[in-house]
Amino acid sequence: MTTEERREQLRGALIDAAETAIAEGGLSALKARDLARTVGCALGAIYTVFPDLDALILSVNLRTLHLFERTITAVRTATGGGGEAAPPDRGAAIEDLVRLAVTYLRFAIEHPARWRALFQHRMAEMPPAWFLREQVRLFRHIEAPLSVLRPDLDDEARALLARSLFSATHGMVSLGLDEKLMTLSEPVLRRQIETVVMAIGLGLTPENAPDHQEVRP
Amino acid sequence: MTTEERREQLRGALIDAAETAIAEGGLSALKARDLARTVGCALGAIYTVFPDLDALILSVNLRTLHLFERTITAVRTATGGGGEAAPPDRGAAIEDLVRLAVTYLRFAIEHPARWRALFQHRMAEMPPAWFLREQVRLFRHIEAPLSVLRPDLDDEARALLARSLFSATHGMVSLGLDEKLMTLSEPVLRRQIETVVMAIGLGLTPENAPDHQEVRP
Repeated sequence: MTTEERREQLRGALIDAAETAIAEGGLSALKARDLARTVGCALGAIYTVFPDLDALILSVNLRTLHLFERTITAVRTATGGGGEAAPPDRGAAIEDLVRLAVTYLRFAIEHPARWRALFQHRMAEMPPAWFLREQVRLFRHIEAPLSVLRPDLDDEARALLARSLFSATHGMVSLGLDEKLMTLSEPVLRRQIETVVMAIGLGLTPENAPDHQEVRP
Repeated sequence: MTTEERREQLRGALIDAAETAIAEGGLSALKARDLARTVGCALGAIYTVFPDLDALILSVNLRTLHLFERTITAVRTATGGGGEAAPPDRGAAIEDLVRLAVTYLRFAIEHPARWRALFQHRMAEMPPAWFLREQVRLFRHIEAPLSVLRPDLDDEARALLARSLFSATHGMVSLGLDEKLMTLSEPVLRRQIETVVMAIGLGLTPENAPDHQEVRP
């Protein structure tokens, strides 16, 4: 094994160990000393393959994003890649939005600690551009139904609206599951998300855009 | 001054000092030693009026909730308490929802550290019931327009939907202002919130509820 192969092996083993530690106990359970013991390396060896623990957390979060992407891609949508050939209509696009939102809820419930680690701000600095691009790439799944509901939007405006719909869904999921508020049960929260996202889909038309209907401050 | 009056004075001075510390540096800036120095008391005296720093944070957060309630109450809405006598219609109710959401955005921008402290989970335990009730009381402002848009809902279902609309708005505000994502400017974020909340209002009708239009899992 070359030095480079050994480094790659250590890197993979550390990400595996960190992923398990986060999945079991959340970000606060992540300790360099424990990781070194788990993978059987010296404490200092961690820092030969990662500049700091933040970089290791980022690698775990990248895996979580990829796991979520595989989960979304498996969801049958009419407007997205995995769909049937039928031309997408507004009804199908709205169903897609609802299905994507419910998939996000289920992902958060099935992988609570890994999901929370994506949003916990333990990190000292802003994530690097490549990580932000990975996040933004996931919004594409929302953009597909949006292009049916708001065909008037250009790419930038559609991407922005996709981010906003994700943020709205994330808010319902994260406050709905919040243990410091009154936690909602999965069926109740799911029904709420269906109600709100379906309303968004129904109300999103070019004619109804606030650019056309001005709201006074 | 009686002992009770002295305790009350110390309590008030500590809340003032903690509020200033949080407003300037966030929750992480809150240190018992600094508070004691600011109000001119012994370190141990803090714990004669608050069981721990969490209880002190809760008192600051209560003030923030009250400040936000005063801010909302000052907003002229057609369906809420401060409105004119005109009978609320769907259009007016939708405008109220949008106005409340934009008010929330502005509050978060004007009081960033105090607003963030409401949601930062440094606290060891769940907030007491009286604090949860204070939070839930704020949802009443959202319930007023909802009773116009969804007159079919009973009190419990309307309160639940109000919480969900708040959560969706909170998601857009908090991820929109998030420094770890690409932060959106106030006008851009405001327009996004207007678009999404207006769509929700337009799409929320008894006929469109998912109970009537079943979405397959």
